[in-house]
Amino acid sequence: MNNILDDIVVLDFSRVFAGPAATQVLGDMGADVIKVEPPAGDEARYYGVTKEKLAELGGVSPSFLALNRNKRSITLDLRNEEGNRIARELADRADVVVHNFRPGVMERLGLGYETLAQTNKGLIYAEFTAYGGKGPLAHIGANDLALQAHSGLISITGEPDRPPVRCGTAIVDLHGSLAIAAGILGALLHRHKSGRGQRVESSLLLSSAHLMSYFYTEYWMDGTVRKPMGTANHLSVPNQAFPAKDGEVVIIASTDEMWTRLAHAIDPEKLDVPRFARVFDRRQNRVDLIDTLSSLTRELTCAEIVQRLGAAKVVVAKVNSVGEAADSLQLEAVGGKIMLDAGHRQFPSVASPFQFSEVDINKAKAPPQLGQHTREILGELGYDAEALESLTAAGAFGISQPAE
Amino acid sequence: MNNILDDIVVLDFSRVFAGPAATQVLGDMGADVIKVEPPAGDEARYYGVTKEKLAELGGVSPSFLALNRNKRSITLDLRNEEGNRIARELADRADVVVHNFRPGVMERLGLGYETLAQTNKGLIYAEFTAYGGKGPLAHIGANDLALQAHSGLISITGEPDRPPVRCGTAIVDLHGSLAIAAGILGALLHRHKSGRGQRVESSLLLSSAHLMSYFYTEYWMDGTVRKPMGTANHLSVPNQAFPAKDGEVVIIASTDEMWTRLAHAIDPEKLDVPRFARVFDRRQNRVDLIDTLSSLTRELTCAEIVQRLGAAKVVVAKVNSVGEAADSLQLEAVGGKIMLDAGHRQFPSVASPFQFSEVDINKAKAPPQLGQHTREILGELGYDAEALESLTAAGAFGISQPAE
Repeated sequence: MNNILDDIVVLDFSRVFAGPAATQVLGDMGADVIKVEPPAGDEARYYGVTKEKLAELGGVSPSFLALNRNKRSITLDLRNEEGNRIARELADRADVVVHNFRPGVMERLGLGYETLAQTNKGLIYAEFTAYGGKGPLAHIGANDLALQAHSGLISITGEPDRPPVRCGTAIVDLHGSLAIAAGILGALLHRHKSGRGQRVESSLLLSSAHLMSYFYTEYWMDGTVRKPMGTANHLSVPNQAFPAKDGEVVIIASTDEMWTRLAHAIDPEKLDVPRFARVFDRRQNRVDLIDTLSSLTRELTCAEIVQRLGAAKVVVAKVNSVGEAADSLQLEAVGGKIMLDAGHRQFPSVASPFQFSEVDINKAKAPPQLGQHTREILGELGYDAEALESLTAAGAFGISQPAE
Repeated sequence: MNNILDDIVVLDFSRVFAGPAATQVLGDMGADVIKVEPPAGDEARYYGVTKEKLAELGGVSPSFLALNRNKRSITLDLRNEEGNRIARELADRADVVVHNFRPGVMERLGLGYETLAQTNKGLIYAEFTAYGGKGPLAHIGANDLALQAHSGLISITGEPDRPPVRCGTAIVDLHGSLAIAAGILGALLHRHKSGRGQRVESSLLLSSAHLMSYFYTEYWMDGTVRKPMGTANHLSVPNQAFPAKDGEVVIIASTDEMWTRLAHAIDPEKLDVPRFARVFDRRQNRVDLIDTLSSLTRELTCAEIVQRLGAAKVVVAKVNSVGEAADSLQLEAVGGKIMLDAGHRQFPSVASPFQFSEVDINKAKAPPQLGQHTREILGELGYDAEALESLTAAGAFGISQPAE
């Protein structure tokens, strides 16, 4: 065995972010991920870029490229009788089906769990929805931002007494992707022991609630409703961004020992003083502490602050731009940046967020062109060139998109 | 079998957020999670609350309560010879060891992977570090905020031309928790097939990079460095918060069809117009569109907007406070809010972010008191009351903390 899931076939009907990010993780772990795309393709192929930029990038958006390596693509028109039949044939051979349609859509397509499980007893069927399959909001559409709003995350993100803001990346989607992946891995373990498949459900709602869990617990315990605090938070002081000569750094000293080390690394006379000595003192004298420390960090460069506080084992980091972060030597050193070979070009990609000593999950194939593997996958189902032609004529792959 | 991991013992040395959140997921899935705490306890027990509030809450912080259900607690002084020996005994019987000490700490304690694997061949050893185990930053301490800064996440969160802010919850920690959990589940699958254990690594760095992956891909492809956009983003227009009479709602219409439905649900005369018709038009006329739509939403209540746009299948959600989100009927309807029985009181908790049709992972035991299961766990190792007394006298459980 070369990889953990190299005996597993994942049939992936999901689009845009959470589902594709989940199946990319499974693909990294060796699964054969068959991405079923509508004739026009996963809409994420065209996301967030101008027409001109899309052309420059070779017709595929960065967000699609980031989340679709290690997959094969087949286009199928699921509303066409022949296209739908091919999907059923693929589902009969799959170990795992993943989708993120609204509740009821897969059932109407004849691809619901109950139907597929009749002929594929061991099937693991993973559904990722917005708000889950039942309850008052089940039929409301949603996306990452909607759940950042619904979950209260937006309400605790931003500057004090200013409008709230979103968390800049699609964290609910991406957190949800690991929830789906973990759920599927759990169901595969269960199948190893019981021989049975099952349905696995996750949602943007559950994913966002998990991210907010300790805020909800606090509210449930004593009614506390937290508000945005800029780069600070309510857990300790200092625990936020501070100005440097040439940018900003975050500094966190959550214990008294760490604070004392910080004080001696920066300016013991001004900082190692009774009014900041204990965790409750620092919370009490928060404004004073932040002003005093800021006036000192402002005289130093980011590099100086990181060097001094890092050596003193105080938690510190530079506030990086996207470019600085992506180019971080550390990311490359730990294997977090992997190279994909897309034929016409090589480009880097971010690895799955875990690594194994016995297995290399970073042998990556570049994201597929739309329908790139249609012929190959149909060949595996036993369809020859002639059959393929008649399927094409019948519209199985959609009007606008021939099989190749 | 009642649950997926009910034959699995997890020995958990991790503290604060990411590690404990990971092992809570494993505990929900049925694992026997033995939480090894230092004599003073996991510092998260005392996090983010004043002394007075801590006393009111029964001596345990909301963030500890949120992330430590379904575990048993034993206190051990790992620097004490006897305490260390007990840890080794427990590790010899464990299927999984989890820790989030800095690189080298577990090795110095004689609890490194190489040592433990000598006597426990099938051991899965999960390490969660700040920046990974090698590279220029390997020995720098970090936490959630440090990686929000290092990863560039802070640099894309906030209002345009205002200071950046943090994402209000500990997303790098919590995303990392699912990365660890998924990695451990993958390693358990691998062990089923190969019989071999292995080391699994994750880190705040890999977790944050995964959250930022599509921004890094874009930067790597053409050098684009994104900036904060308030509640908006670069992917589509409208895709942000809008004012209502009584609060704010987010509205997202990423396709032309959805925009047309939105226009007809709100004010077709003002919105279903050529300058907003196509996705590229809306991006071009962004400011105009946001002004026009805001002037219309300002006249409606949140409930009216959600009702109208929800019915029109436009993505919409109210910007909830933490309290509104926690009390959401939808969360309860889908089983995302579970009740814990802590003896003296019942309190709610947020479920793991996935569910199984064949297995109930929401049968939860409340978080343990510090050292609550010390005697029970030592009993399972074969230590009687007399042995326990002499271990206590030898300082195995620390000076300040007797065995019960």
